[in-house]
Amino acid sequence: MTGIETGSALLTDLYELTMAAGYFERRLTCRATFELFVRALPSQRGFLVACGLESALAYLENLRFTEHEIAFLREYPVFRTVSSGFFDFLRELRFTGDVSAIPEGTIVFAEEPLLQVTAPITEAQIVETYLLSVLSFETLVATKSARVVRAAAGKDVLEFGARRAHGPAAGIRAARAAYVGGCHATSNVLAGSLFGIPLAGTAAHSWTQAFPSERESFVALLDCFPDSAILLIDTYDTVSGAETAAVLNRKISGVRLDSGDLLQKSREVRQILDRHGHRETRIIASGDLDEFRIAELVATGAPIDSFGVGTEIVTSRDAPALGMVYKLVESEEAGRVEYKTKFSEEKSYSPGPKQIFRFASGGHFHHDLITRAEESCPGAEPLLEAVMRQGQRITAHSSLEAVRARARENVKCLPDEYQTLENAAHYPVQKSEALQRLWEETRVRHFAEK
Amino acid sequence: MTGIETGSALLTDLYELTMAAGYFERRLTCRATFELFVRALPSQRGFLVACGLESALAYLENLRFTEHEIAFLREYPVFRTVSSGFFDFLRELRFTGDVSAIPEGTIVFAEEPLLQVTAPITEAQIVETYLLSVLSFETLVATKSARVVRAAAGKDVLEFGARRAHGPAAGIRAARAAYVGGCHATSNVLAGSLFGIPLAGTAAHSWTQAFPSERESFVALLDCFPDSAILLIDTYDTVSGAETAAVLNRKISGVRLDSGDLLQKSREVRQILDRHGHRETRIIASGDLDEFRIAELVATGAPIDSFGVGTEIVTSRDAPALGMVYKLVESEEAGRVEYKTKFSEEKSYSPGPKQIFRFASGGHFHHDLITRAEESCPGAEPLLEAVMRQGQRITAHSSLEAVRARARENVKCLPDEYQTLENAAHYPVQKSEALQRLWEETRVRHFAEK
Repeated sequence: MTGIETGSALLTDLYELTMAAGYFERRLTCRATFELFVRALPSQRGFLVACGLESALAYLENLRFTEHEIAFLREYPVFRTVSSGFFDFLRELRFTGDVSAIPEGTIVFAEEPLLQVTAPITEAQIVETYLLSVLSFETLVATKSARVVRAAAGKDVLEFGARRAHGPAAGIRAARAAYVGGCHATSNVLAGSLFGIPLAGTAAHSWTQAFPSERESFVALLDCFPDSAILLIDTYDTVSGAETAAVLNRKISGVRLDSGDLLQKSREVRQILDRHGHRETRIIASGDLDEFRIAELVATGAPIDSFGVGTEIVTSRDAPALGMVYKLVESEEAGRVEYKTKFSEEKSYSPGPKQIFRFASGGHFHHDLITRAEESCPGAEPLLEAVMRQGQRITAHSSLEAVRARARENVKCLPDEYQTLENAAHYPVQKSEALQRLWEETRVRHFAEK
Repeated sequence: MTGIETGSALLTDLYELTMAAGYFERRLTCRATFELFVRALPSQRGFLVACGLESALAYLENLRFTEHEIAFLREYPVFRTVSSGFFDFLRELRFTGDVSAIPEGTIVFAEEPLLQVTAPITEAQIVETYLLSVLSFETLVATKSARVVRAAAGKDVLEFGARRAHGPAAGIRAARAAYVGGCHATSNVLAGSLFGIPLAGTAAHSWTQAFPSERESFVALLDCFPDSAILLIDTYDTVSGAETAAVLNRKISGVRLDSGDLLQKSREVRQILDRHGHRETRIIASGDLDEFRIAELVATGAPIDSFGVGTEIVTSRDAPALGMVYKLVESEEAGRVEYKTKFSEEKSYSPGPKQIFRFASGGHFHHDLITRAEESCPGAEPLLEAVMRQGQRITAHSSLEAVRARARENVKCLPDEYQTLENAAHYPVQKSEALQRLWEETRVRHFAEK
């Protein structure tokens, strides 16, 4: 993802840096393990498609403070009580930790760590904000995309959301994540050039309007792009637009409908096209489509070949945020290991580094078991794998096509009941006895020490 | 906003570039005027706070294709029927148009153009995607921020959303827009350094957990930041955390509560602090706060001094997208002017370049009138002003503080009934007779020509 954002080390919350200064001043040099996970799935989601690891690793590899950034911090009032050694420390700071992660494209559930970071506490702390931001956003979009693609039941889904994303950089991340989730193409040219995602596009109403007549605008587009032109036929009236196109006596790759009752209009347009021998001409529908509307159009047999979806996918509109957190689970200093959790009301979590085992039977996922990191589970697949050691990647980059294939395979293996668009069943995620025992021991020890 | 994204000219939809190629091939050299506006306000919004113009102008000033980008397009299959002169044209392409806009921080309503672009049609077309993306996102966030700040009724609102934004760049844009909308500070360090927004931060649970005891963690933070430390007191138990802090016999700037029943907990904590003489210690509350929850806490008299709000502001969670469009309203070629609109079902709009006049009385906004650009309205304030001519800015940059002050002043002038959090009244926006007549004439002419 290099190139989208500056990758500045200041892309973090102030408290990460004040805590870093505090750790430095107090000479807290422990090695900390943080885990990043989602507390609970949004109510409309039965599963998540993990995405964002590539962004996370690229960031960790490139983390450093520039002189300019250090000068800003040194001058900032909050830091005036901090000794100047801290700023020298920042100048040399690189990410030197170990990272385990669930590969992009894998289906995950609540409480399952997507990422596990073990590093000197200062490094592990500073990276929190960026890691949460990219993993939660890209996971949201990949997940929403998988839902929309499921609803389309084999028809193409084209991601058209660049203009609705939360800024251009979000649009690029979203295009990649949407492709991971199963979308077939994007309209986002920069995303296409960065990641090799197939590009798709049609024409805008302004194209039609720029010519003296709709007919002339159609002819001009077909002249320029004889093999790929998709005519937008609803600028003035969909049915008469379809008739104007159909009688041109030209090969027409596709037409797009962007307004009105898409079921009724697509039927009328299909009839007009067929009547004039355009049986190969594809119908693309767009206009505020979400997974529910698409499922309805598919169920009623609307003769639509591709769906163009923007807003809903790139903003994950019905669930635009995830309750994703990054929590300290262990610290280790001079061989002394301490397990960490908190006990505030609804926000406790399991201490200690973990592994997740996925049990399958007959080619379908059956249940997951979250265990302590050192446990083993013969016959089940461990999901967390080491991806970075001492700040260096130790796994090859997965190609985007491989990630997308993994997502497709994962979706195929998840039983249907867990991925219905509404009221999906709750996929069983259990915790091992050893993990439960550790929580209880940590709790007893904590309150005993108080 | 330079530095957040690459500013690549490929940050656009494919169809903008295929249309550009088509305009080039057909030698369509008309000068086009596009207007950018919101079709309808989201159901939970009575007004919008315009934001994103700085991003838009910076983009227009810097628009250009690199050799690498041109090479990508030239090789891309869709463009193989396009003559090579087009790629030479792209190499020289700069934005040379005129732009009028509503200043950032101004309150706007549906159908009111925020931006009016007049340029050779190719230039005006290519910039659509980027302009929509930045203006809609920044306007969404500034608007949501204004709602949250209103709910806080004079108490500070701190924007803590970097980790929940749709990627790090969205976090930076959101921090600026939230400040425009009235937030008092941000946790986003890069946004602070780029824009001079005041920074705010406390400590995370990991800070508490990194020390042998909560007490030691509090002492350490107070030692490091004696004037500014804000203690997070809910890691284990809020009330006992407050007691631990209160008996330290240290000056404590603030404490933060991040879980539980914030009304009850804030009362208990206030009592504990007061009982130990910490009457100056501020209470900061955070944890999934939105405008409704904050209004409730304020109404019940919760002794909270500042609210930390993340997700809700930076994702505009209840309305994460705007139906913002960019529509051709006029084209002009060799002195021949044509007015443009479309007639497809629900998506028609007023043709021709416009002006918006705001009528006020007694210091309060009374109603708006959308007119043709050349109309005048003595006694009313025109909202659209020329900001760019022939690709060059003709207005000075407004400082961020000036933009924020404008938003504050606008909110003060908007009668209360239009800004209640729920069921806000519909602010009256009228269209001039001349504008209505133009729509009718354009319609008659269109159907006569068919």
